[in-house]
Amino acid sequence: MALIVQKYGGTSVGTVDRIKNVARRVARYKAQGHQLVVVVSAMSGETNRLLGLAREITPEPDPRELDVVAATGEQVTIGLLAIALNQIGVKARSYTGGQVRILTDSAFTKARILAIDEANMRRDLDDGNVIVVAGFQGVDDEGNITTLGRGGSDTTGVALAAALTADECQIFTDVDGVYTTDPRVVPEARRLDKITFEEMLEMASLGSKVLQIRSVEFAGKYKVKLRVLSSFEEEEGPGTLITFEEEVDMEQAIISGIAFSRDEAKISVMGVPDKPGIAYAILGPIAAANIDVDMIVQNIGAGGMTDFSFTVNRSEYQKTLNVVNAERGAGLAAKDILGDNKIAKVSLVGIGMRSHVGIASRMFKALADEGINIQMISTSEIKTSVVIDEKYLELAVRVLHKVFELDKEPSVLA
Amino acid sequence: MALIVQKYGGTSVGTVDRIKNVARRVARYKAQGHQLVVVVSAMSGETNRLLGLAREITPEPDPRELDVVAATGEQVTIGLLAIALNQIGVKARSYTGGQVRILTDSAFTKARILAIDEANMRRDLDDGNVIVVAGFQGVDDEGNITTLGRGGSDTTGVALAAALTADECQIFTDVDGVYTTDPRVVPEARRLDKITFEEMLEMASLGSKVLQIRSVEFAGKYKVKLRVLSSFEEEEGPGTLITFEEEVDMEQAIISGIAFSRDEAKISVMGVPDKPGIAYAILGPIAAANIDVDMIVQNIGAGGMTDFSFTVNRSEYQKTLNVVNAERGAGLAAKDILGDNKIAKVSLVGIGMRSHVGIASRMFKALADEGINIQMISTSEIKTSVVIDEKYLELAVRVLHKVFELDKEPSVLA
Repeated sequence: MALIVQKYGGTSVGTVDRIKNVARRVARYKAQGHQLVVVVSAMSGETNRLLGLAREITPEPDPRELDVVAATGEQVTIGLLAIALNQIGVKARSYTGGQVRILTDSAFTKARILAIDEANMRRDLDDGNVIVVAGFQGVDDEGNITTLGRGGSDTTGVALAAALTADECQIFTDVDGVYTTDPRVVPEARRLDKITFEEMLEMASLGSKVLQIRSVEFAGKYKVKLRVLSSFEEEEGPGTLITFEEEVDMEQAIISGIAFSRDEAKISVMGVPDKPGIAYAILGPIAAANIDVDMIVQNIGAGGMTDFSFTVNRSEYQKTLNVVNAERGAGLAAKDILGDNKIAKVSLVGIGMRSHVGIASRMFKALADEGINIQMISTSEIKTSVVIDEKYLELAVRVLHKVFELDKEPSVLA
Repeated sequence: MALIVQKYGGTSVGTVDRIKNVARRVARYKAQGHQLVVVVSAMSGETNRLLGLAREITPEPDPRELDVVAATGEQVTIGLLAIALNQIGVKARSYTGGQVRILTDSAFTKARILAIDEANMRRDLDDGNVIVVAGFQGVDDEGNITTLGRGGSDTTGVALAAALTADECQIFTDVDGVYTTDPRVVPEARRLDKITFEEMLEMASLGSKVLQIRSVEFAGKYKVKLRVLSSFEEEEGPGTLITFEEEVDMEQAIISGIAFSRDEAKISVMGVPDKPGIAYAILGPIAAANIDVDMIVQNIGAGGMTDFSFTVNRSEYQKTLNVVNAERGAGLAAKDILGDNKIAKVSLVGIGMRSHVGIASRMFKALADEGINIQMISTSEIKTSVVIDEKYLELAVRVLHKVFELDKEPSVLA
C-alpha cells in the first residue's frame, strides 16, 4: 500500500464526463489498496472565464479580490470530483486550500506556499477517504484567499506529496510524458523514460509546458518522486519519471531536450555608468515591483559605460518598461532604454553537457547555418539558452532537434 | 451616519454591468457618510448552472460536496463587486461566509446560522472599508462549507444586521416593495408602504417571493428594521418598510395581502387508528428525514379510525411518500395512502383579521361562487389558508383580491 498524490489538470477535468473518468481512475488505484490524495485544477476554460469577468470591470482588478474570484474554479472541481467518487462508492472528501490549510504568503495572484497542515487530511485518509484538494490556492495568515499563479496546481500536488511524505506524485496531463521537445513543433520528438530533476527544472523554467517550474523546485527540494502521465489513455503507460540520479552513464544523451518559450520580452538599458551597484540600481526596483527577471546580460564596459539587458515575462513587458523609465526619471543615468517583446528563447538542456565541450559552438553554428541571429546568450552547467527573433522559433527548434539527433534513442554523441 | 446592511439578489448582480450599477449605488450611500455591509447572491442563473453540473454526475449528489460547489456562486460575486468598488475609489473587502465567520449547523444544503463573529468586519468598517459578504453560506464548527438553502442570502443580510446592530437592513430586489399580491397574477396589485413583521412572516412563508421566510423570522427575533427596495430604479423609492407596530388603526386594512404557492403537495393517510400518538407516529419519521411539513389536518374520527392529511414542499413529495410507505411497511396501520402534487395554497393575510369576524366565511363564499373546491383549510390569528386544485390558483387569487378590495387604498371594511 502506497500513499500517492495525483494531480489532474484542467483538460483532464474539462467536462463532467472527464471528471467521471478521473473518478474511475482514482477508484482503480484505491482498489489496489493505495491511499490517495487528488489535486485538481479548474475545468478548462473556467479560470479564463472568471478572470474575464473581473477584467470586464477593470483591466487591473484588485489582486486580493481577483484571487477570491479565481479560486472558485478549483473549488467547483473538487466538489464535483468528490460527488463523482462518492457516487461510485468511493468515500471522498473535498478540501479547499484554506480547509487543508495551505498557508501562503500574501502575494495575491502569485503566492508562495509556506506551510501545509496535514492533520485533517491524515485523519480523513485513515478513515478510508480519498482526499480531493483544490490546486492553485491557499490562504495567508490572516485567512485571505490566495492563488499560486497560473499552473500552480502542480505545485500544490508536489507540496502535498512532500508534506505527507507520499511515495509518488503523479502529474496527469494531456501528454503521456516529457518529450525531447514539443511534438507540435517537431513531430519526431521522442518521449523520455526518465529525466533528472535538474534537467526537468531547466526544461520547465525554459518553457516546457508539461510541468510548472515551482512544482519541480519543490519536488527537488523535498525529494518527491515525480511522474508525468497521460490522463487520456484508458490504461496509463509508464510516463516519464523524474529522478534524482545525476551520473551520466554511457547511454545518457548529452542533450535531453530542447525547451523554448515565446513568453519573453527583452529590455536593454544602454549607456549606463560601468560601476559597482549598477545592476542592483536597475534590478532592485524591478524585484520590488514583484517582476521576475530571467536572463541578465551585461556587456563589457567601454569608456566607463556599459549596456545592460535582461528578459522578463512578456505579460510584464509594459510594467517593466514603466519601472525602468521611472528609475531613469528618478536619476538613473542611461543613454537609452530599448525594449523588444517579439523575441523567443530556445534552450538545449542536458545533464551530459557537463562532461562534453563544444555543445554551445555546435548550437551556434547550426543556427548561423540557417541565418538566425542570436541576440543574447546565457549558459549554465546543463543548459545553453539563446534569445532570437520570435519568427525563427520553430525553425531553430527543428534544426537543433535534428543536429543533436534527439529523434534517435540515446547514444553518446562525439 | 448610519450602519446599513444592503442585500442584492441574483438578478441585481446578474451581469458585470449590473454589478457596476450596484457598486455605484453603494458608493452613493457611502458618500452620504454611512457604513455599509453589502450581502450578495450568485449572479442569476449561476446557482442553477452549478447544481446542474453536480446533477449531471448523479441526481442525488453528496450534500457536503454539493455545498462546496454551490457556494462558489456567491464567492464570484463578492470578488467582482469588491473589484468594481475599488475601481471607482471605494475601499472594499470581500468576505466568504467562512471568512466572516458565519457559523452554522451541519445540515448541508439547508443549514441554519448559529452565530456570527463580527470582529473582523468591525475592524474593516472602522478602517473605512465597505464590507462585501457572500450570502447563502457559512461554515460549521469543523470548517465544512455549508449553504442556507435557496434564497438564503436574505437571511444572511438580516443576520448580519442583527449581529452588527445595524440601523437598517435593505433588501434590494427586482420589485419596488411588497404588494398586496403578485402583480403578474393581479395587475391591480398595490404596493404597501408598510407591513407588520407578523404579516410579512405569513406572506413569506406562504409563498410571496419577495423575502425568504427565515430572514423575516430573524428580523422579527432581533428587531431588525427591514426595508424592501428596487435595485432597478436609478433613485430608489421608499419601498416597503417592515414594522413592529401591531396596533390596528382606523386606516389599517383588515387584509394586507394574498399570498399563494404552487410548491405544494398533499399526502393523506387514510383510515388510521384514532388514538393518542398517531400524529407523532406519522410525522416523526418525516421530521427525522429533514422534511418540512406545512399544513396538517386531522379529521374527526369515526368508528375508531381517522384520516390524516398534511402538505410538504412539492420537491419533497416523492421522498415523503417513500417515508410514509416505509412506515406502513414497518407496521403503521393505514387503509390507504393518497398523494396529490397538483395542488396550490392561497392565503389571506392581515393583522386586522384579529378584530374582525367573518373573513373566512367571506373567503369561502367567494371561492364557492367561482366553483372552486376547497381541499384543506388552515387558520391562524392573522391568516386563513386554503388548499385548492392548482389549476384554479390564478382565478382564486384574482377573485379574492377583488372581493377584499385590495386594489384600493386601505379603509375599514365592514
